[in-house]
Amino acid sequence: MPSAADLAERVKEGDLRLYELEDHADADTAAAARRQLLAEEVGADLETVGDYSFPADRADPNIENMIGAAQIPMGVAGPLPVDGSAAEDDFYVPLATTEGALVASVNRGMGAIREAGGANAEVLKYGITRAPVFSVSGVKEAAEVVEWVEDNEDLIEEVAEETDPHIKYQDVTPYVVGDNVFLRFDFDTGDAMGMNMVTIASRSVAETIEAETPASLVAVSGNLCTDKKPAAINAVEGRGYTVAADVFLPSEVVEDRFGTTAEAIAEVNTRKNLVGSAKAASLGFNAHVANIVGAAFLALGQDEAHVVDGSNAITSVEAREDGLYASVTFSSLPVGTVGGGTGLPTQSEALDVLGLAGGGDPVGTNGDALAEVIAAAGLAGELSLLGALAGRHLASAHEEHGR
Amino acid sequence: MPSAADLAERVKEGDLRLYELEDHADADTAAAARRQLLAEEVGADLETVGDYSFPADRADPNIENMIGAAQIPMGVAGPLPVDGSAAEDDFYVPLATTEGALVASVNRGMGAIREAGGANAEVLKYGITRAPVFSVSGVKEAAEVVEWVEDNEDLIEEVAEETDPHIKYQDVTPYVVGDNVFLRFDFDTGDAMGMNMVTIASRSVAETIEAETPASLVAVSGNLCTDKKPAAINAVEGRGYTVAADVFLPSEVVEDRFGTTAEAIAEVNTRKNLVGSAKAASLGFNAHVANIVGAAFLALGQDEAHVVDGSNAITSVEAREDGLYASVTFSSLPVGTVGGGTGLPTQSEALDVLGLAGGGDPVGTNGDALAEVIAAAGLAGELSLLGALAGRHLASAHEEHGR
Amino acid sequence: MPSAADLAERVKEGDLRLYELEDHADADTAAAARRQLLAEEVGADLETVGDYSFPADRADPNIENMIGAAQIPMGVAGPLPVDGSAAEDDFYVPLATTEGALVASVNRGMGAIREAGGANAEVLKYGITRAPVFSVSGVKEAAEVVEWVEDNEDLIEEVAEETDPHIKYQDVTPYVVGDNVFLRFDFDTGDAMGMNMVTIASRSVAETIEAETPASLVAVSGNLCTDKKPAAINAVEGRGYTVAADVFLPSEVVEDRFGTTAEAIAEVNTRKNLVGSAKAASLGFNAHVANIVGAAFLALGQDEAHVVDGSNAITSVEAREDGLYASVTFSSLPVGTVGGGTGLPTQSEALDVLGLAGGGDPVGTNGDALAEVIAAAGLAGELSLLGALAGRHLASAHEEHGR
Amino acid sequence: MPSAADLAERVKEGDLRLYELEDHADADTAAAARRQLLAEEVGADLETVGDYSFPADRADPNIENMIGAAQIPMGVAGPLPVDGSAAEDDFYVPLATTEGALVASVNRGMGAIREAGGANAEVLKYGITRAPVFSVSGVKEAAEVVEWVEDNEDLIEEVAEETDPHIKYQDVTPYVVGDNVFLRFDFDTGDAMGMNMVTIASRSVAETIEAETPASLVAVSGNLCTDKKPAAINAVEGRGYTVAADVFLPSEVVEDRFGTTAEAIAEVNTRKNLVGSAKAASLGFNAHVANIVGAAFLALGQDEAHVVDGSNAITSVEAREDGLYASVTFSSLPVGTVGGGTGLPTQSEALDVLGLAGGGDPVGTNGDALAEVIAAAGLAGELSLLGALAGRHLASAHEEHGR
Repeated sequence: MPSAADLAERVKEGDLRLYELEDHADADTAAAARRQLLAEEVGADLETVGDYSFPADRADPNIENMIGAAQIPMGVAGPLPVDGSAAEDDFYVPLATTEGALVASVNRGMGAIREAGGANAEVLKYGITRAPVFSVSGVKEAAEVVEWVEDNEDLIEEVAEETDPHIKYQDVTPYVVGDNVFLRFDFDTGDAMGMNMVTIASRSVAETIEAETPASLVAVSGNLCTDKKPAAINAVEGRGYTVAADVFLPSEVVEDRFGTTAEAIAEVNTRKNLVGSAKAASLGFNAHVANIVGAAFLALGQDEAHVVDGSNAITSVEAREDGLYASVTFSSLPVGTVGGGTGLPTQSEALDVLGLAGGGDPVGTNGDALAEVIAAAGLAGELSLLGALAGRHLASAHEEHGR
Repeated sequence: MPSAADLAERVKEGDLRLYELEDHADADTAAAARRQLLAEEVGADLETVGDYSFPADRADPNIENMIGAAQIPMGVAGPLPVDGSAAEDDFYVPLATTEGALVASVNRGMGAIREAGGANAEVLKYGITRAPVFSVSGVKEAAEVVEWVEDNEDLIEEVAEETDPHIKYQDVTPYVVGDNVFLRFDFDTGDAMGMNMVTIASRSVAETIEAETPASLVAVSGNLCTDKKPAAINAVEGRGYTVAADVFLPSEVVEDRFGTTAEAIAEVNTRKNLVGSAKAASLGFNAHVANIVGAAFLALGQDEAHVVDGSNAITSVEAREDGLYASVTFSSLPVGTVGGGTGLPTQSEALDVLGLAGGGDPVGTNGDALAEVIAAAGLAGELSLLGALAGRHLASAHEEHGR
Repeated sequence: MPSAADLAERVKEGDLRLYELEDHADADTAAAARRQLLAEEVGADLETVGDYSFPADRADPNIENMIGAAQIPMGVAGPLPVDGSAAEDDFYVPLATTEGALVASVNRGMGAIREAGGANAEVLKYGITRAPVFSVSGVKEAAEVVEWVEDNEDLIEEVAEETDPHIKYQDVTPYVVGDNVFLRFDFDTGDAMGMNMVTIASRSVAETIEAETPASLVAVSGNLCTDKKPAAINAVEGRGYTVAADVFLPSEVVEDRFGTTAEAIAEVNTRKNLVGSAKAASLGFNAHVANIVGAAFLALGQDEAHVVDGSNAITSVEAREDGLYASVTFSSLPVGTVGGGTGLPTQSEALDVLGLAGGGDPVGTNGDALAEVIAAAGLAGELSLLGALAGRHLASAHEEHGR
Repeated sequence: MPSAADLAERVKEGDLRLYELEDHADADTAAAARRQLLAEEVGADLETVGDYSFPADRADPNIENMIGAAQIPMGVAGPLPVDGSAAEDDFYVPLATTEGALVASVNRGMGAIREAGGANAEVLKYGITRAPVFSVSGVKEAAEVVEWVEDNEDLIEEVAEETDPHIKYQDVTPYVVGDNVFLRFDFDTGDAMGMNMVTIASRSVAETIEAETPASLVAVSGNLCTDKKPAAINAVEGRGYTVAADVFLPSEVVEDRFGTTAEAIAEVNTRKNLVGSAKAASLGFNAHVANIVGAAFLALGQDEAHVVDGSNAITSVEAREDGLYASVTFSSLPVGTVGGGTGLPTQSEALDVLGLAGGGDPVGTNGDALAEVIAAAGLAGELSLLGALAGRHLASAHEEHGR
């Protein structure tokens, strides 16, 4: 086997391409060769990047042109008692982030939830979507194609489910714009987030539709899925998990933990998260759920770009007679406990902290529970930041922790 | 100094809180104690999480309750020739992701750009915003407060700039909704992304406004900033960098690299990225820029939750006489090369690969260049996916790389 | 019976209220009394307002505190050949507007459609919605209420349909946000636009739900209907009619009618209606369909505030080999031919011009046809303005007609 | 002069076109000829349509192919005491509508406002926009064009203001998307709504830009204006008038007028207008302002299609210690008292009822006052409907008045 230095030399000489190194050496050597090449080409020392703690070939399904790993500090917040439809435990939640004060803030929110006896959580809807776009000759043909699809859901189900034993067809919603037909297919993919599975299933169904109707496939994703773009269709109809968490904090907990009142926190929520987001023409009526979603996704092997979908959440707060009711409802949280980045070592260990690594029993319950835990953690983050804002402590917290 | 086991024991006994460990031991020991505690409490083995390659105290400004690090595989794509207003070089772009096929896809797009002679990039607008919300008695008082603000921008500038030598006040846009006044302040923070700086400056300005007018501060962020929520105000007016990249690919490059035609790629873009996103009521008219933004952000020490803002991008494609014109315009890409996660070891090394670690000379040019490189990398990602879709290769690529 | 002067005097003396006059005189006298009162109070001469051509009591279901009528000039455009699922004829389309050049512009577009052999039109979806909002104790109870609703659709259907022989229950979509449950009910109301019918039916269903579940009705409309507000839920899922029209214009028609090319019109559409609307974060990807919808609605007795819903439309244009394909797809066009303002004299006469006054045979076909005709008229308006823009004639047309 | 019958005959014979009749006869005869033609072609009797109360030639700038007029019942609500920056009086507000119960509802809201001593109103921002779109070669050239525009605002102002003595240039905001440059020009057009004026001015400026830069005009409106399409750019930045109205209703007024409490109305507003609209991904956070805007626009000669822009409004309600604070903030209300339909007889009389017909003294004050009155009327409508919903009276009110 050639050494890293040999490989680097051959790339420089134009003999090999950067992505062909794994054909000639093991994954660690290939990565070392690329680091050496970068050292020579751009003068970068990649020592820490190269000091990863997993076997490079284990990352093979997740990366190409590997040079090493990004190391993101991971903290833990909790315990967080969750009473969910699938999650039913006290959870320590791993969070990977570089934003100082974030873990501390979430932890403070969890303390309040704990003192109040725990958060409720509930999966409201579930299904991962893919929406191919087809071209047709015009609106008449579009109507015919839609009619065919509605008449042939049994066949669609059969074709889709043949592509993978773990996929379950749920339904289809057709959308027509002129000579474009978008078919938003919705699947249950068990404990997997499932994007690749539904892409493959949708392509197979699309081929059937091409064969049986005059429609011609333009793209297996027509952006009505909608994957990794902020989109009202997800905020309204959901994608992945639609999941909510809530808690009632007695007045003394509010006072004790945040040094403020239910009324003050409710006012901040209305002026900032409702009226402010309304005026911003936002799809996110919350304070900072993306922070918690992002940090949990990184720690737990989820797709980092799905933070976009995960930011579609509405936080509601009411001052009730004896305390504060607060909820966070995520419309589109695509998560899973198998596949994607979940099998990588640090990610798998972090899932173990939740007791949710791998497939659930029954199937789907680990995915459900993960969604509920993240929702409850998001609630903790919202409570903490709203409480801090109500007490005008945000910037000073950052001064203390963040600089 | 107590051992990790001692500390873990004391936490279990209720003697210490999880976040107090750094008061009693060094950061590495504190992290080890937390891992031990989690091992005992939830049975999780955190060996790989604990095998991080940086001194734990170096992560101190970035994390609390540290237990270790998430390790995300990092690859590299390139070289990518960029002709920007600040970036002017051939760049190898580090990308950290767990999504198989992503780096390969971006790399393929960069190959096409390279063959076409490189991408143009241009910072179109820059400014990081913070928008406190104030309560007033009603619309009359709101109008008075706005008038005071507009008459006293010199004072606001002075107060803001006193908080930090690296901050430069740019302007303010007031928005009134009933008895709420939102003031969207816009700052230049040099090479830093600058959220903490502008939070502190805005709080200081807010105190002045409270002292001088009847307005009362409700929250230092009133969600018109808009930070980490999908919001039209960012998609329209920008936040952080508004930055675009484009390229003209001669027909033979399109054929050679993607096995398809300019017309076919333009059709995919129109039906998917324009019409599809329109029908989805989306703020992202692109194929998957969040993937590239997310992977670059992770590798390069940016805030992972800002992927939300970074997904507000429009991809345009035209079939011109002899080839394909393609562009990606990001409205709100908040990036920096100092502060935040940029000082952590793997992140700093990755910035070195771009030659953009630390402050620029003159100030701001490293931030500008980073924005331009990410924009050009986003363009590469768009070209590659649109090309693949045009050739119906998406799902098969995933089958090959992603499972 | 007292005279108008007597009544006016008694109102001035505080003896009668402005809205009580019909209790003491016929509708014409009451209106005259109000005009006299206004003449005295504010010095306004309302002679023309009082010179309406319908019996005042016929407007009784449509207006309170009547003083007369607004007279809006009405023109006609056409004939417009439509090949629809319900509309199948050459239509002269009445349009009431005060915007100079509008009728001429639509007429020009119809000329092009006529020369091309007519437009296709197709109702893609139909259903008028009402979405009451209920409060519950939290997310757990919300899930229970949703489950009850899904288990009891038969009962809901029965309760809803008991309120009116002309209403047909179609389905319900539940949405939960924290302790709010929104139930979007969807009905077929035949040839009526049906808002009042569905409000009454939804109230009745809501009472049942209150009786059978812990949910408490907050408002019979919870804004997810969405009625008369711009909302993505309508742009995505539709409300009233989702209806499209399209046409293929051979190149010679494009040249002859607009003095430009298919490519030029397609370029205007992409840059303005797709990219421009994308950058504006719009829900309307069209040039000016609201003009045509507004003018048709006024002439034809529709609800003028529904122009808001009617502006959610996407115009697509493609340069094909021998000409121009153009379509307009309205997502949410709430129209009807019975009820509302359709029974008033000028409105009813205008519906007669289309041959669509009153209920259809079979029921619903007049409503369907009206939607298709307005869609096709909208297409004519789009073609004309896009053609004019392509030839840079917009402003000069306004100079000629509009001033 | 030929008779109507002669003209109708000549059109049928193909001798004349429908729009050429005014070249051969006076406007009344031409309209009569068209009615006769329609009677023959489609069998429609247009007697009431033809019985309009204004000289047909007076409608000449407003309509083509005139056949008569639509007559919309007009009622009046009030008096409404308004304390505005320009409006300072008790106003009777004319409203033209076919929606039963609407005028009664607004009138009830005005009664509450009156009892509370009147509403405040305030113009917060004003400017009518037009945004041409230009094509350029790419992002580099786009940046150059933007730089030229920013360096040459004096010239732009001069060129724009040469086109009309009544137009005043305010500013320009450039937006770039790839090879598209949008320039959103903002003008003061005095008491006119001013769309035609700003179209002409923008075209003239565009010609200068074409002459001085490499940019090429694609369309004088590039949809970032945004005219008559629901768009976040208007909801955020405003267009026409950004105007707000508010009122404080003491608890006894709330009880007396609506039979409910401040808390109950605030709860309805939060759940329906804030949370409901948030979940609907709406740009309108209000109950039904489009109804009031629509009815006022029709009565007062405004452009009916601008109801779309006028529906971008946020209603805020708070239960304060001794009563209810309520506000409505319209972001984009394009109105005027000269030009457009304001000169037509019934419309001009209706403006006289407000004392706002014709140009203001100083210029612009009539336009300002009209915006403030409509805002205050909108507030009355919101209060009334929210109050009714709080008491669950909506549907029954419709049963009584609307059927």
